[in-house]
Amino acid sequence: MAEGARKEDSAGQGVPAVVLLSGGLDSATCLAVARSQGYRCHALSFDYGQRHRAELAAAGRIARALQAVEHRVLRLDLAAFGGSALTDPAIAVPEAPTEGIPVTYVPARNTVLLALALAWAEVLGAFDLFIGVNAVDYSGYPDCRPAFLEAFEHLANLATKAGVEGRGRFRVHAPLVRLSKAEIIRLGTRLGVDYALTVSCYQADEEGRACGRCDSCRLRREGFRAAGLPDPTRYR
Amino acid sequence: MAEGARKEDSAGQGVPAVVLLSGGLDSATCLAVARSQGYRCHALSFDYGQRHRAELAAAGRIARALQAVEHRVLRLDLAAFGGSALTDPAIAVPEAPTEGIPVTYVPARNTVLLALALAWAEVLGAFDLFIGVNAVDYSGYPDCRPAFLEAFEHLANLATKAGVEGRGRFRVHAPLVRLSKAEIIRLGTRLGVDYALTVSCYQADEEGRACGRCDSCRLRREGFRAAGLPDPTRYR
Repeated sequence: MAEGARKEDSAGQGVPAVVLLSGGLDSATCLAVARSQGYRCHALSFDYGQRHRAELAAAGRIARALQAVEHRVLRLDLAAFGGSALTDPAIAVPEAPTEGIPVTYVPARNTVLLALALAWAEVLGAFDLFIGVNAVDYSGYPDCRPAFLEAFEHLANLATKAGVEGRGRFRVHAPLVRLSKAEIIRLGTRLGVDYALTVSCYQADEEGRACGRCDSCRLRREGFRAAGLPDPTRYR
Repeated sequence: MAEGARKEDSAGQGVPAVVLLSGGLDSATCLAVARSQGYRCHALSFDYGQRHRAELAAAGRIARALQAVEHRVLRLDLAAFGGSALTDPAIAVPEAPTEGIPVTYVPARNTVLLALALAWAEVLGAFDLFIGVNAVDYSGYPDCRPAFLEAFEHLANLATKAGVEGRGRFRVHAPLVRLSKAEIIRLGTRLGVDYALTVSCYQADEEGRACGRCDSCRLRREGFRAAGLPDPTRYR
């Protein structure tokens, strides 16, 4: 759906959508896009044992600033499984670019997050799921690719009472999937996102100050530079 | 894979599998089938705010009895979303057969559970997921149908580092999907399942004693009768 198209029901009310909101730059932009399209946004964050817990505080501030109708934080103990630098303290966050799929990959993360978004959507009567994944800068993560998103959309319509009964068709919206980091930043800036509220760093401190060295910090900094916009990130 | 076929790696060790284990009759039988095929079974249960918490205690006893190499219980607050008689105290469990998809349906439940099983499998290096769903007696649940399971298998191989790197191919095994309740009971009995350990009732009491009136109790009781086997269920 094109940016700016209004999504309203017959009574002129915004149609509900579930928007995954991590507290980072991408998901904040995704929420702004969903809102600009007229959706009533129910923002969903996860406390999944991630290291960068400052992201969760950021998610709450972003949800308020972008007028989500609701923001829920679901506890989910992915750390119990281990296997990622983002949830397992025994695995170090890399501070230099690495080959292949990075150790910051959380096993099956987007499958788990979309599954839970789908559960909430079904209860809300929503058929639109928004996720701020990006296949350009994060091409190392398999669950950020369009083929994955299409497979999830197909699954969602088979998996649910709402899908099977034909009350609507679930759609997975990934409005950032083909944008560069600079394009994302320009889009969000145009839509009024205050990026000073967002936290992208994989190892931010408790006040949300970024390390400036991890993959995520590097991509973010380069994004602001390429967009020709001032970088409001607080580095420590 | 046929029952009794041995699943071993080149060193003759059992291959790891993640088996979803609710503590009910079907999932106990599913675990027994996986074990009979030579898998090293990592059993996974969820504390998702279900009413019938006696099932979780039953799951632990079944995992021990059927020699799972490990049993984990993951907390997952599906009750936060509501929408099902199994997680929402405001919705009554029906005690008579109902039309269509029953209110005991938990929104997107099997999608969520398989997603988390997939996450654990990826960390374990396992490619085999077992789920005790059944399309015959529970045909009212959309996420128990073969088309759903095939869609999840397709998704799993796109969603994961292990799938994308070609280290193996994820398979969703649903050995009970086309069996009647009586056939499930006969199969499990042959494989040594002690059904006195299992709890199926949607509203079992704290000691795991069944109400004898809900859908799940009715199907179970009819299953033992049709199988011509004694029903070891403890009714209150």
